[in-house]
Amino acid sequence: MHSSLDRIKIVLVEPSHPGNIGAAARAMKTMGLARLVLVRPKRFPDPQAEWRAAGAKDVLSRAQIADELSEALADATFVVGTTARARRMTWRQASPKLAAPEVLAKAERGEVALLFGREADGLANNELDLCHLHVCIPASPVYGSLNLAMAVQVLCYELRSACIDRQMSGEQAQAWDRPQAKFEQVEHLFAHLESLMESLEFLPNEQHAVVMRRIRRMVGRIEPDVTEVSMLRGILSAIEKQIHRA
Amino acid sequence: MHSSLDRIKIVLVEPSHPGNIGAAARAMKTMGLARLVLVRPKRFPDPQAEWRAAGAKDVLSRAQIADELSEALADATFVVGTTARARRMTWRQASPKLAAPEVLAKAERGEVALLFGREADGLANNELDLCHLHVCIPASPVYGSLNLAMAVQVLCYELRSACIDRQMSGEQAQAWDRPQAKFEQVEHLFAHLESLMESLEFLPNEQHAVVMRRIRRMVGRIEPDVTEVSMLRGILSAIEKQIHRA
Repeated sequence: MHSSLDRIKIVLVEPSHPGNIGAAARAMKTMGLARLVLVRPKRFPDPQAEWRAAGAKDVLSRAQIADELSEALADATFVVGTTARARRMTWRQASPKLAAPEVLAKAERGEVALLFGREADGLANNELDLCHLHVCIPASPVYGSLNLAMAVQVLCYELRSACIDRQMSGEQAQAWDRPQAKFEQVEHLFAHLESLMESLEFLPNEQHAVVMRRIRRMVGRIEPDVTEVSMLRGILSAIEKQIHRA
Repeated sequence: MHSSLDRIKIVLVEPSHPGNIGAAARAMKTMGLARLVLVRPKRFPDPQAEWRAAGAKDVLSRAQIADELSEALADATFVVGTTARARRMTWRQASPKLAAPEVLAKAERGEVALLFGREADGLANNELDLCHLHVCIPASPVYGSLNLAMAVQVLCYELRSACIDRQMSGEQAQAWDRPQAKFEQVEHLFAHLESLMESLEFLPNEQHAVVMRRIRRMVGRIEPDVTEVSMLRGILSAIEKQIHRA
């Protein structure tokens, strides 16, 4: 039943409390998810994490530890970020209930990463920029601060519910003739484009970041396959060659 | 926005760990629920409960402590029990997603109580018999043991989501000409009926309990109003009078 859930990684970015890591592992396992990634955890491994994991110690012991978020995301073809706040630039955003069926469909085609931010202040803007979709749990305006592991439980619960619905409806992923580009490949495309833009000097430096965010948002919506990424990079290389010749 | 959520009590039956009580309070507040009832908590108040409640200490300090479950339920017109297991006798059962809109509709007409059992073994059969509806979180068959506060979070999340949906759709509770009977009034009806049945001696003693459970399940589906309960009790009294005369 869980082949799609197996393709979803839960990524905790800089979690402070080991108890939350353990509780998140337990929340995942109760909903049939098993792949946990920890980016720069403050204290791990730790007995508190073990204790709160209860029957999900196997999820903890198989957790991947990453120094950089990009390392955790390298294989992902679809990245989802959880957020409590509205942001300056509009991004694709959905509730867990609306996002879950889409996330599951993506997981049938490739690896999906679901990011959760720090207990105190969530994901940073540059981390949210790496996401195709932002998910916001509809919390009380009076007190909306969900515990980290609780947010993991709610998202995993919606993913499991969507998985059950999907199997009952017999829905299947759309076929696609090429594999989807992975996070790392798309990042190389961005880096390539950015260095080209800098060499073009057509924008003042302080505007580069804004333009790059808009481009990220756009490419995020395209979700390019590997052939499309190669093609775009080929075009960039051709432009560079032309510039150097001139 | 939350008038219906205000009418829903979260009842924890014999919680062992004060940390879970605090985490449940926080889970409730993030979803706009405020009324917590603790039936025979093992340790409460306790610093661990305070710590895990974070910004929801007000929910803890206003929590009602009850010695008996019946005390916690006295005012309720609709009682929901959470359960992880299938039971011998079929009861009305639903997933949180399907139950939430109904629970919310009930909360527009009267007080609703949502029961959560002990960390180790949930609600007992005689406690589940008091419920109109059983709710079961669809968990993994491999490891389905959700932490108590996580289960509270999932249910409260679904209630809040249903509340938002309901407000957007402009749906309203059906009018009813009489107030619904409260838990306590219906319990008096059951006690009356049971004593009558005993005096009738039409069943061997060991079958009384089974028959009473079937009657409970049936009356639970009726959800009688106060007039209906009075009427039924009037009939029982008339029967008793007739018997004593004979």
